[in-house]
Amino acid sequence: MSHYPASILRLIQHFSRLPSIGEKTAERLAMHVLRAPKKEAEGLAAALLDLKETVRLCSQCFGLSDAEVCRICADPARDAALVCVVEQPAEMVAIERAGAFRGKYHILQGTLSPMNGVGPEEIRIKELLDRAERGGVAEIVLATGTSVEGEATASYIAECLKGFPVKITRIASGVPIGGDLKFVDGMTLKRAMETRYVL
Amino acid sequence: MSHYPASILRLIQHFSRLPSIGEKTAERLAMHVLRAPKKEAEGLAAALLDLKETVRLCSQCFGLSDAEVCRICADPARDAALVCVVEQPAEMVAIERAGAFRGKYHILQGTLSPMNGVGPEEIRIKELLDRAERGGVAEIVLATGTSVEGEATASYIAECLKGFPVKITRIASGVPIGGDLKFVDGMTLKRAMETRYVL
Repeated sequence: MSHYPASILRLIQHFSRLPSIGEKTAERLAMHVLRAPKKEAEGLAAALLDLKETVRLCSQCFGLSDAEVCRICADPARDAALVCVVEQPAEMVAIERAGAFRGKYHILQGTLSPMNGVGPEEIRIKELLDRAERGGVAEIVLATGTSVEGEATASYIAECLKGFPVKITRIASGVPIGGDLKFVDGMTLKRAMETRYVL
Repeated sequence: MSHYPASILRLIQHFSRLPSIGEKTAERLAMHVLRAPKKEAEGLAAALLDLKETVRLCSQCFGLSDAEVCRICADPARDAALVCVVEQPAEMVAIERAGAFRGKYHILQGTLSPMNGVGPEEIRIKELLDRAERGGVAEIVLATGTSVEGEATASYIAECLKGFPVKITRIASGVPIGGDLKFVDGMTLKRAMETRYVL
C-alpha cells in the first residue's frame, strides 16, 4: 500500500474504515475516484458533510429527518391512531417500500439487550408510553425483529402497555410468500402454525 | 429509497455511483456514516477533495505522484537502466509490493485496443520510445497483462523498439508458485513449456 502517494493512501484508509469495504475494495474505489471527474468526488464529499449537518431524529417518531418533524409524522393523510414500532430507521424504510402500512411510526433506536447494557432507558420505550398516554392511539403494532432481542423487546413493550386502552398487535411471522414450506426453518413453521388464522 | 430524508438519499446515490457498490451497500454505508463520529465523515470528505487536488502523473514514468517526479523516479538508488513497462499504476504497486524489481517504471495508462479506439497515440508508447532514444536504458521489461490486449501491446512495443540498442524482455507466464499443475489452464501451461529455462 505504501507505494501510493500519501493522498491516495489517506483516501484508501478512509474508505477501508467503512463497513464491508476491505483494503482491496478501498484501493479500487480510490482508483475510481482518481479517474472520475472532479465533480463526482466533490459531490460525494459535499453529500457526506451535508448528511452530518442536516440529519437529525424526528421529535415525534425518532426516525431520520431533515426537519424538526419527519415527512411521515407531518403527513395529515396518515392514520395517527395506528403506530408501528420498529427497531431502526432502515426497518421503517422497508415497511414503507412495501407500501404495507398507512399509520405512523415509533423508532426505538435499538432493542433491549441486557448483556450489552441496553435496558429500557437506553431505547425510546418511555417516549412510546408517553405517546400512548397522550391518547389518540388506537393500535400499536410491534414490528421489532424476530431475533431473541426483538422478541424480548416486543414482549416487554406489550407488558408495559397493558394498562392503556390500546390494542397491541405483533407483525406476523411465517412462511414467506412464494417460499417452499419444506425449506422454512422449524421455529418459523412452529410460529406460523401457532398464529394460523381463519379464512 | 425515497422514504429517507433528502440528504441521506443524496449520499446513497453518490455511494452507489462507486464501482461494486450496489444500492443496498450504499444504503448501509450511508447509515454507517450517520452513526459514525462527525470527524470520520469530515476526514473522508477531505481525503476525497485532497486526492483530486494533489495527485498527478509523474512527468517521467506517468505513475501516480503528488510531486512533479514520483518517489521511485526520484530515487537515486533505483537502477535507471532497467525500465519495467506496465499498463496501470495498480500493476506497478503490485510489483513494488512483491519487492520484485529494483529498476524504474513506465506506466502506459492503458493497452492497445483498436476495437475501443485506443491506438498507439492514446497510450504512452511515444514517451517510452523517447526514453529509449535519450539513452541510458539497457533493458526494457514488458510487464503488460497476459490478456489479448496486453500481449498485443507488448508485441507492438517490442516491434517499435527493435532499432534501439536495448534488450527487450517479457515478464514470464507459467505455473503459479505453490499451484497444482493439473489445475493450470492449457494456455498458461503451453506458455510455461515454451518459455522453459535451463537450471
